[in-house]
Amino acid sequence: MPKVGVIMGSSNDFTALENMIRLLHEFKIDVDVHVMSAHRTPARVQEYALSARTSGIEVIIAAAGKAAHLPGVIAAYTNLPVIGVPIKSSFMDGLDSLLSIVQMPNGIPVATVGVNGSENAAILAAQILSLRYDELVPMLRNYRAKMSKAVDQGEMTVQKEVELL
Amino acid sequence: MPKVGVIMGSSNDFTALENMIRLLHEFKIDVDVHVMSAHRTPARVQEYALSARTSGIEVIIAAAGKAAHLPGVIAAYTNLPVIGVPIKSSFMDGLDSLLSIVQMPNGIPVATVGVNGSENAAILAAQILSLRYDELVPMLRNYRAKMSKAVDQGEMTVQKEVELL
Amino acid sequence: MPKVGVIMGSSNDFTALENMIRLLHEFKIDVDVHVMSAHRTPARVQEYALSARTSGIEVIIAAAGKAAHLPGVIAAYTNLPVIGVPIKSSFMDGLDSLLSIVQMPNGIPVATVGVNGSENAAILAAQILSLRYDELVPMLRNYRAKMSKAVDQGEMTVQKEVELL
Amino acid sequence: MPKVGVIMGSSNDFTALENMIRLLHEFKIDVDVHVMSAHRTPARVQEYALSARTSGIEVIIAAAGKAAHLPGVIAAYTNLPVIGVPIKSSFMDGLDSLLSIVQMPNGIPVATVGVNGSENAAILAAQILSLRYDELVPMLRNYRAKMSKAVDQGEMTVQKEVELL
Amino acid sequence: MPKVGVIMGSSNDFTALENMIRLLHEFKIDVDVHVMSAHRTPARVQEYALSARTSGIEVIIAAAGKAAHLPGVIAAYTNLPVIGVPIKSSFMDGLDSLLSIVQMPNGIPVATVGVNGSENAAILAAQILSLRYDELVPMLRNYRAKMSKAVDQGEMTVQKEVELL
Amino acid sequence: MPKVGVIMGSSNDFTALENMIRLLHEFKIDVDVHVMSAHRTPARVQEYALSARTSGIEVIIAAAGKAAHLPGVIAAYTNLPVIGVPIKSSFMDGLDSLLSIVQMPNGIPVATVGVNGSENAAILAAQILSLRYDELVPMLRNYRAKMSKAVDQGEMTVQKEVELL
Amino acid sequence: MPKVGVIMGSSNDFTALENMIRLLHEFKIDVDVHVMSAHRTPARVQEYALSARTSGIEVIIAAAGKAAHLPGVIAAYTNLPVIGVPIKSSFMDGLDSLLSIVQMPNGIPVATVGVNGSENAAILAAQILSLRYDELVPMLRNYRAKMSKAVDQGEMTVQKEVELL
Amino acid sequence: MPKVGVIMGSSNDFTALENMIRLLHEFKIDVDVHVMSAHRTPARVQEYALSARTSGIEVIIAAAGKAAHLPGVIAAYTNLPVIGVPIKSSFMDGLDSLLSIVQMPNGIPVATVGVNGSENAAILAAQILSLRYDELVPMLRNYRAKMSKAVDQGEMTVQKEVELL
Repeated sequence: MPKVGVIMGSSNDFTALENMIRLLHEFKIDVDVHVMSAHRTPARVQEYALSARTSGIEVIIAAAGKAAHLPGVIAAYTNLPVIGVPIKSSFMDGLDSLLSIVQMPNGIPVATVGVNGSENAAILAAQILSLRYDELVPMLRNYRAKMSKAVDQGEMTVQKEVELL
Repeated sequence: MPKVGVIMGSSNDFTALENMIRLLHEFKIDVDVHVMSAHRTPARVQEYALSARTSGIEVIIAAAGKAAHLPGVIAAYTNLPVIGVPIKSSFMDGLDSLLSIVQMPNGIPVATVGVNGSENAAILAAQILSLRYDELVPMLRNYRAKMSKAVDQGEMTVQKEVELL
Repeated sequence: MPKVGVIMGSSNDFTALENMIRLLHEFKIDVDVHVMSAHRTPARVQEYALSARTSGIEVIIAAAGKAAHLPGVIAAYTNLPVIGVPIKSSFMDGLDSLLSIVQMPNGIPVATVGVNGSENAAILAAQILSLRYDELVPMLRNYRAKMSKAVDQGEMTVQKEVELL
Repeated sequence: MPKVGVIMGSSNDFTALENMIRLLHEFKIDVDVHVMSAHRTPARVQEYALSARTSGIEVIIAAAGKAAHLPGVIAAYTNLPVIGVPIKSSFMDGLDSLLSIVQMPNGIPVATVGVNGSENAAILAAQILSLRYDELVPMLRNYRAKMSKAVDQGEMTVQKEVELL
Repeated sequence: MPKVGVIMGSSNDFTALENMIRLLHEFKIDVDVHVMSAHRTPARVQEYALSARTSGIEVIIAAAGKAAHLPGVIAAYTNLPVIGVPIKSSFMDGLDSLLSIVQMPNGIPVATVGVNGSENAAILAAQILSLRYDELVPMLRNYRAKMSKAVDQGEMTVQKEVELL
Repeated sequence: MPKVGVIMGSSNDFTALENMIRLLHEFKIDVDVHVMSAHRTPARVQEYALSARTSGIEVIIAAAGKAAHLPGVIAAYTNLPVIGVPIKSSFMDGLDSLLSIVQMPNGIPVATVGVNGSENAAILAAQILSLRYDELVPMLRNYRAKMSKAVDQGEMTVQKEVELL
Repeated sequence: MPKVGVIMGSSNDFTALENMIRLLHEFKIDVDVHVMSAHRTPARVQEYALSARTSGIEVIIAAAGKAAHLPGVIAAYTNLPVIGVPIKSSFMDGLDSLLSIVQMPNGIPVATVGVNGSENAAILAAQILSLRYDELVPMLRNYRAKMSKAVDQGEMTVQKEVELL
Repeated sequence: MPKVGVIMGSSNDFTALENMIRLLHEFKIDVDVHVMSAHRTPARVQEYALSARTSGIEVIIAAAGKAAHLPGVIAAYTNLPVIGVPIKSSFMDGLDSLLSIVQMPNGIPVATVGVNGSENAAILAAQILSLRYDELVPMLRNYRAKMSKAVDQGEMTVQKEVELL
């Protein structure tokens, strides 16, 4: 069973990540969720990142806001792919989080998704894992098909609205 | 042999991607490089993305500047992981490219690296492929060790400079 | 009868476009409204754009938020004038949408209006169509006259307010 | 013969517009070029905009930098479609020009292209005029075909470069 | 009696200017308030600006939002000092308004105050008029003294709050 | 007993500083709180800064919003360490305050913390004072331990939430 | 004879102000130029501002870069109109200087011109002084006429360029 | 003798820090300079920060660019005051570095100076150390006096320039 680690800097970030975890479950991905802070519990983050591969973690998703160091600090201690989710805090809708995560120095990438883009982090994790777990490929296709159907329904809703104008 | 597709919107972007391709070669990754434009040759982009998985491509790296649609358009046609490299063009050091790539809608992620961060795109691709190709794991470790040694040499350089102050 | 295509990426965008559609109706312009997503239903967008001219569409208005690729993707498949409406989503009041729409590469323009500026998209469409449909010219003049009268009424309102100070 | 007015705020802007004028010539569009300033010669701008339609002008392209009022001031005096070209001056790569042009109030649109995007202004003008002048349609198609060929050549260039790596 | 013209682009801006007008009244300055739009009633703006000096207006305060052309258009038609008040609209807290007003081309200044800084526009107008109307000097001094007293009261409030901690 | 001066430009800023003062009290630091304005009561600010060292003040924390001159003006009159707290006002979430405080000219530093980061100002003051007051070192360690425990509790909260998914 | 004080924070700013001083001379305005720093020589700035009115200064122009406190600090000590010139330093083309100058708190205005807009500071000073010195009115008109002629010459230059295309 | 640790992420940053080190020497402060990377040699950074206080380091200055995690990572492992110097790299003049350093979460402050503001980091370190080392107080006063004299010389230079106009 594929396995993803999900790390958030504070339990306050859980709400922004809830749907992401549900989505990972939908993809039958084992999810290892933890609260750790790059600044308040740095040793725990280090230990987690160093042992992640041997614990069977294959992709790590890290979410953080403001001077969002968490994804980068994790990436410093592991060669697993690290996906960074910039969390929108109180400054410029998360521009600080976005730049702190995406602008990593050469050699230590963080795969960054949009601000509060946790659902995309889940999909990206599934896409990455699909290289190894073939069963994920049809699941990803189904997910797209569902999205496409949702657009169809949006089309119907709008056609009704237009008639009422 | 692992295989990565590298797509750029214009041959002008080649210079910004040269080291990335070299780095992928170093990791013994097969690299399939093409110039295609989301706007000038959209059908070719569509065709490439649709057939990428069956052609053996496992990760796609797409680089683009300004209203950088290329990575997102590719991601719309494939479930392979797509890494987006925002190219710095003439406006606000590539803020336009960065936002056009990273702020993807729910369901269609692009794994975004920093502006002109093509080397990190290579490392990220290698990390992703390492889930399937075990031989990449020691190569990634070696790469880190080399980086760490470069920092050591920087330390020696600076110690000499400090003595001269 | 002049004909405009209106494409939005999601039915959620309808509210931001409602007055625009009403305004197009006022100008006796036939409006063909659809929900299609550049990322979730890319084939449908392609097909629509490719066949737009032969279906009698003369101007396309496309509205999108975040990494707003929709107007640019449509413009990639047609030579009809495409008007892009950046929708304000949750990041920096739509700066991401604006830059993703306006900063198109050479050769594929999108006529961009202000963030959430859908009413101006309607007027711009009418101005463009007035080159071919003379009856639109007096309608545009009347619209201006009405706007000018609204300013007159604003003047009266303010004069009363000032007297009360 | 289709006719476009090109207005720039200063003769210094000519360099940024030269290729645009050449492109309009290529499309066999009559081009009426003038230097006028919304602030230094406002009466001339007003007069030009008011008489543009009767002088046979069908689309106006206005280029300006900084607090770029020129396109908006022209749009205030005519119902012809006005295309605005934000010129990059010395502040934040033309963010000031872009916002001053694109963020027009309701009722008075300016069709904005990217910063220094004058070539796109020419194509957009040709697309708009193609609603009335059928001969422009094949020319626009040829232009696209040429762009597509340029991408092909870029592909060949890059393939050679890749072999040399 | 000193005389200031206050021009706003829409009656909606009145609320943001109400205290400014009250403040001008406090300084015994005659205030001539009007709603005029640089884009919807450009001729009226031109006429007003051209005749302002002969009507006894000595300073003009113009408030506008978004692509805020009003102060600059007025400044184009008069040599009276024009004070521009950027109004915060729905985009980036008025950054668009600020840049559209302050970044005027050489030769046509607009004295810009902060976003929604209408009270400062009133004080600035009084300071300018004080060059000619000596009676304004003590009034400005009193106003400062009042502000200084308000800080004293803030000090007392805070001392009480601190004791309660 | 260590002593910190806390200066705010307006009593409205008190709410943003309340927890900071409590935190300083927790660290058994004497706090001297005042409301003074760099612009409305400049002489008082000057006097305070000039006499701070002789009054036993060892660190000054100054909070201000918008064109936040207060910390810089204080720093101009003293060689005590000055910590600047940018207050979020109504423009771009305090980007104006941040830049006005942090971008000091060479020679006159202000130690800047994040926007509305007053709690960090308290910790920073305690860290600085700990160079002189050894008793602060264990208090700072306890504070960290408490933060680390709060992360533990967040971990437990999230584990429960995850089980409920 | 009208008299303007010109204050710059560093002799390095002189180049950016040279033409402004020449322009003030052209308007037969007496110019009192000084280098003073709000941070390095705050007492001198205070003294200058406090005595400016009695020394016959009628308008003060203050230029500064980065956390540009100079205009605001001067404005804190005088009720003369203070014109602020944001100097472009090394960060974001002077966005820091602009915000630090324009975003003044209520009650203490600084009349801000564009970044490096010192020529406009001169014109604005002349416009302000023209309320008291009638002889400035025709000079300002002549200046406009000259600018208008420069546009005419630009028109001729461009007509020649267009013919060569 | 007071002791400051200076940490930079790469030997390339040395040039931006050279004058800072000289300045610390001038203040007779012992300087311990090292190159370490938060991402490439994270263990070394951790070890350094953990042992800094016992090695006699009293203040740490950390300089970094882009997603500048170095100062924050150091601050996570020590309660010594950490001064962060945002280094201007290739994106938006170091806005990324500034936000990544200053926007630290509650509890872990970094005392941030301006972009490339390393000289101010030296002065700030000296000011902090002056709480413990009285001999630094007169040195800081002398430094201010020298700066004030430099302004005097600037004044003389400018007076000569003005005479030549």
